[in-house]
Amino acid sequence: MIRYTTQIRVRYRDTDQMGVVYHGVYLEFFETGRTEFLRDAGMAYSSIEDTGIMLPVLEATLTMKRPARYDDLLTVHAIIREMPTARLKIEYEIYRNDEPLVFGHTIHAFVTAGSMRPVRPPHDFVDTLARLMGET
Amino acid sequence: MIRYTTQIRVRYRDTDQMGVVYHGVYLEFFETGRTEFLRDAGMAYSSIEDTGIMLPVLEATLTMKRPARYDDLLTVHAIIREMPTARLKIEYEIYRNDEPLVFGHTIHAFVTAGSMRPVRPPHDFVDTLARLMGET
Amino acid sequence: MIRYTTQIRVRYRDTDQMGVVYHGVYLEFFETGRTEFLRDAGMAYSSIEDTGIMLPVLEATLTMKRPARYDDLLTVHAIIREMPTARLKIEYEIYRNDEPLVFGHTIHAFVTAGSMRPVRPPHDFVDTLARLMGET
Amino acid sequence: MIRYTTQIRVRYRDTDQMGVVYHGVYLEFFETGRTEFLRDAGMAYSSIEDTGIMLPVLEATLTMKRPARYDDLLTVHAIIREMPTARLKIEYEIYRNDEPLVFGHTIHAFVTAGSMRPVRPPHDFVDTLARLMGET
Repeated sequence: MIRYTTQIRVRYRDTDQMGVVYHGVYLEFFETGRTEFLRDAGMAYSSIEDTGIMLPVLEATLTMKRPARYDDLLTVHAIIREMPTARLKIEYEIYRNDEPLVFGHTIHAFVTAGSMRPVRPPHDFVDTLARLMGET
Repeated sequence: MIRYTTQIRVRYRDTDQMGVVYHGVYLEFFETGRTEFLRDAGMAYSSIEDTGIMLPVLEATLTMKRPARYDDLLTVHAIIREMPTARLKIEYEIYRNDEPLVFGHTIHAFVTAGSMRPVRPPHDFVDTLARLMGET
Repeated sequence: MIRYTTQIRVRYRDTDQMGVVYHGVYLEFFETGRTEFLRDAGMAYSSIEDTGIMLPVLEATLTMKRPARYDDLLTVHAIIREMPTARLKIEYEIYRNDEPLVFGHTIHAFVTAGSMRPVRPPHDFVDTLARLMGET
Repeated sequence: MIRYTTQIRVRYRDTDQMGVVYHGVYLEFFETGRTEFLRDAGMAYSSIEDTGIMLPVLEATLTMKRPARYDDLLTVHAIIREMPTARLKIEYEIYRNDEPLVFGHTIHAFVTAGSMRPVRPPHDFVDTLARLMGET
């Protein structure tokens, strides 16, 4: 299992008139968690796209336990439990201090940039994940 | 079962550099589908909030079959299959003409506006849904 | 002068915890006003991009008179007063019934899709605007 | 003059199908620049709202010199040149390394939280700004 942690500050733009974070915004927080994990692992998503491969989201879920609020400093955990095959699953847990707020996951395909045809995950990507799995 | 249909035009703001709609935006399209259904049923969400009751999202999911693109005219179906108890489940199906693009659901709690304590669904709300269920 | 009118419903996503529309969202409402004007004039922005020309925003301003609120039905006026040269200026006025809420403008360049180099406005585009100016 | 600098990473959500940051998003980047300046000055915006005073945006402008792109690490400068009277003006400059990308400003009113009536800027706020102006 790989677990990577990032911090996010809730902006005014992220709130709605309920005085809490709009639910759809958590998918943007998931994006930041996933992006910073990939960058830290030496395979920045921007450099994956430079090789002509994209990882669009096929499925996303989120479960709210407690709402996040304006100016909260959130901790986003991005978690990978299984090696990717045709698809990559990433789980997320968002906390405010020790308080669990939102859990969820995304499932991504590997596709070519132009025609969006499915491809195998790049060797480097798989190798890096395998190495990180071994380390943890 | 209740099924209500709304149309949405994809804006430039909704796209990302993959040239398709950013996945989190579908939750905003679900919101429009749900809002217009409630309005049409005579129980506009704004008037529910006026009574001091809110319906925050507890859970949301989305599954992508095909991406929506800029300027697409989408049809959003909001579907209710079961009478709400403590919670209300709404399903969504987004189409471009006959082509299924994105499916998903949201689950909502009924809570008081200030303290966000759970309450029963308002009588009017339940009666209206029961009537619509009967009609369909 | 050309003036074109579109209606927009304020969504929950558009609000913030101040209970009003987040100021940046008015630029998205301007986009809808401009897009629907171009479509109605027979030169949909998506079809302009299909010819390899894009109209990125070089400048945008907005002045708030009164805030828009959740579920408001807004009227967006998109106004063109001058024929485009290297640049196109569009003004916007947003009303709730007769009440003026937000005014502003955007200035756009005409550029090629790939390299973003400046180009002259397309002949069809200029001709259509000239015709509409004449009619009004 | 007070100048405060923050860094922002461009997310996928911030881009559009032109492959650049959607222009309205720069107002969200301005928000982050302004918020982190206020926090660093010991007058976090969340704590200002706790005293029952809000600073809604009355006017916003932005001028694009060059577009920001996905994954860029941007530097946002928030600049205050004049002491606030009934209104507070903040200027912004966004850079990618030394390259100027976007400039703009926002003008804010001081209003009461409930009724949005204009009030004078809080003494602490004015004192803190005066002290920072003196220091720079």
